[in-house]
Amino acid sequence: MPTIIPAIVASSPTNQLVAGTIERRDVGPADVRIDIRWSGICHSDIHTVQGDWGPQHYPLTVGHEIAGTVAEVGSEVTKFAVGDRVGVGCMVNSCGECANCVAGEEQYCLQGMTGTYGAEDVDGTITQGGYSTGIVVTEDFVLRVPEAIPFEKAAPLLCAGITTYSPLRHWNAGPGKKVAVIGLGGLGHMAVKIAHAMGAEVTVLSRSLAKKDDALALGADHYFATENPETFRALRGHFDLIINSVSATIDINAHLKLLALDGALVNVGLPPEALPVKVGNLIGGRRSFAGSNIGGIAETQEMLDFCAEHGIAPEVEITSADQVNEAWARVLAADVRYRFVIDVSTIG
Amino acid sequence: MPTIIPAIVASSPTNQLVAGTIERRDVGPADVRIDIRWSGICHSDIHTVQGDWGPQHYPLTVGHEIAGTVAEVGSEVTKFAVGDRVGVGCMVNSCGECANCVAGEEQYCLQGMTGTYGAEDVDGTITQGGYSTGIVVTEDFVLRVPEAIPFEKAAPLLCAGITTYSPLRHWNAGPGKKVAVIGLGGLGHMAVKIAHAMGAEVTVLSRSLAKKDDALALGADHYFATENPETFRALRGHFDLIINSVSATIDINAHLKLLALDGALVNVGLPPEALPVKVGNLIGGRRSFAGSNIGGIAETQEMLDFCAEHGIAPEVEITSADQVNEAWARVLAADVRYRFVIDVSTIG
Repeated sequence: MPTIIPAIVASSPTNQLVAGTIERRDVGPADVRIDIRWSGICHSDIHTVQGDWGPQHYPLTVGHEIAGTVAEVGSEVTKFAVGDRVGVGCMVNSCGECANCVAGEEQYCLQGMTGTYGAEDVDGTITQGGYSTGIVVTEDFVLRVPEAIPFEKAAPLLCAGITTYSPLRHWNAGPGKKVAVIGLGGLGHMAVKIAHAMGAEVTVLSRSLAKKDDALALGADHYFATENPETFRALRGHFDLIINSVSATIDINAHLKLLALDGALVNVGLPPEALPVKVGNLIGGRRSFAGSNIGGIAETQEMLDFCAEHGIAPEVEITSADQVNEAWARVLAADVRYRFVIDVSTIG
Repeated sequence: MPTIIPAIVASSPTNQLVAGTIERRDVGPADVRIDIRWSGICHSDIHTVQGDWGPQHYPLTVGHEIAGTVAEVGSEVTKFAVGDRVGVGCMVNSCGECANCVAGEEQYCLQGMTGTYGAEDVDGTITQGGYSTGIVVTEDFVLRVPEAIPFEKAAPLLCAGITTYSPLRHWNAGPGKKVAVIGLGGLGHMAVKIAHAMGAEVTVLSRSLAKKDDALALGADHYFATENPETFRALRGHFDLIINSVSATIDINAHLKLLALDGALVNVGLPPEALPVKVGNLIGGRRSFAGSNIGGIAETQEMLDFCAEHGIAPEVEITSADQVNEAWARVLAADVRYRFVIDVSTIG
């Protein structure tokens, strides 16, 4: 019999978030029940509730940056015990059988992975996210949070961390590589920290010079304002890899020209409109325009261990259940440095 | 003192090609003078003369698929002797000093490589191409044509051959890889032959079923018509690599969805207009949209040797100087299977 627990609920695309309840299933043999302690606020939460990415089932509880402790384990669970510090990210299940799942790339499951919220679960119910006091997840989609990571800073790693770590690894960021990060928000600031820890030479490309001091403090080697046309002349053909963390539409052709031979510009943000790519900018340098979606479960654990080893964690601002609408407004205004995390003890 | 030789000349973007003359420089110490025997007709020749890719200096002689014999060598030439069968492709020089040139990727020279026609040469003159009886080229940009390649079929390899060979090699076409070729023209038919010889499973994507028999005879394993919407459902997520040989605008998003995880769609054709890329099609599969420009000199020689070893050569139709305007009209109408080659003995 499902458990009813407190949550922050969206009842429509336009209404304010309100206090409410959601149901969680009983703990099955392979399940872990987690008492959620911290829950990050991702711009995707807002896009989803607003219907920007398609119609949703309401009421809906969002949140896919979850950190908490194990409260109960199913009879067949082997990887976790009550009291463990754990995390859950953007997905809670996948088919487990397709070529991509078998390769550990569950995020690209050919049947479609099950999103942490707003997705149809195997039992036909709609998944509900981390703005709540608890969650039940099959153990294969639960991550271990190393002790070295401050608990309240662990949550954003489950989305902002892995979303930037995965393409940096895949496109071989490291010593001798010039990496640019477009946008210094929740994802961008993690990209800077991780790329720096990987040994790459890191440049931040931000609209204005406003965040320059921050960027250098986070580990960037260079910083350029893209509102200055001189930036695009000075950096032409310069980068091996550009991570674009901006979901808004940017001048994609101007940025493609900043790539060196065989360079790749990788979008981790999803602009609402198609980007008009001039093919000459690809042909003239064997450049690639690519995209990357979070990371697999094994790679997410690798990222958490990497962050623990390198002392990396996001910059967070703690907020509470009664401030969550204000926090969303500030996310929309890009007025947070650099990630809000909800203190889940304030829910309910 | 320059030599005046017979050539086919364009006097403006709109006039018919006419018989005329061009100048060739004296043979310098590092130069090779080539008596041209065969000269391929590439769609790029027409685009250039028509001004589609920018204004040109007229009169202009085009042609960058050149096969001939060495007639004279400079005092410092070491690689070639009089009588050798040689070829010249899309470039006749580069800076030789930038990182890309040093890496053997002269086609991506950071100073800009010197095109075989319509480019400013080191002496300030405008280069003139292969629709002529001779050419003088620095030996570093001259290729050796293996005896196993029929001479009249060698010419198109210098553009159509290398332009498709290079991305197939770079993106690892070979056994176990599913490769699609969009468009079955001069470039496309070479992509099919080369990818098949590399051991890949080759699919042709062409507008209609008209060229199906041809495609299978050329080495394709499968053939689908893109005018049939069912093609895009059946092949979704199917290919590791797609070579797009079409310069016209295609539905890029429909084709990107045909890529498997980590697949790349590589344009070797240059559409006149920007292609609107929906980023979700890249993110959902870590796909890449890329471009590739001919190949380096060493790789071009590798391609010629590969073709000789595998018995690969283009399908050609021989034409003559007095038929060249008709040949161009047929290229524009896609009415050639699959490459025109001018018998240069008919010039002058």
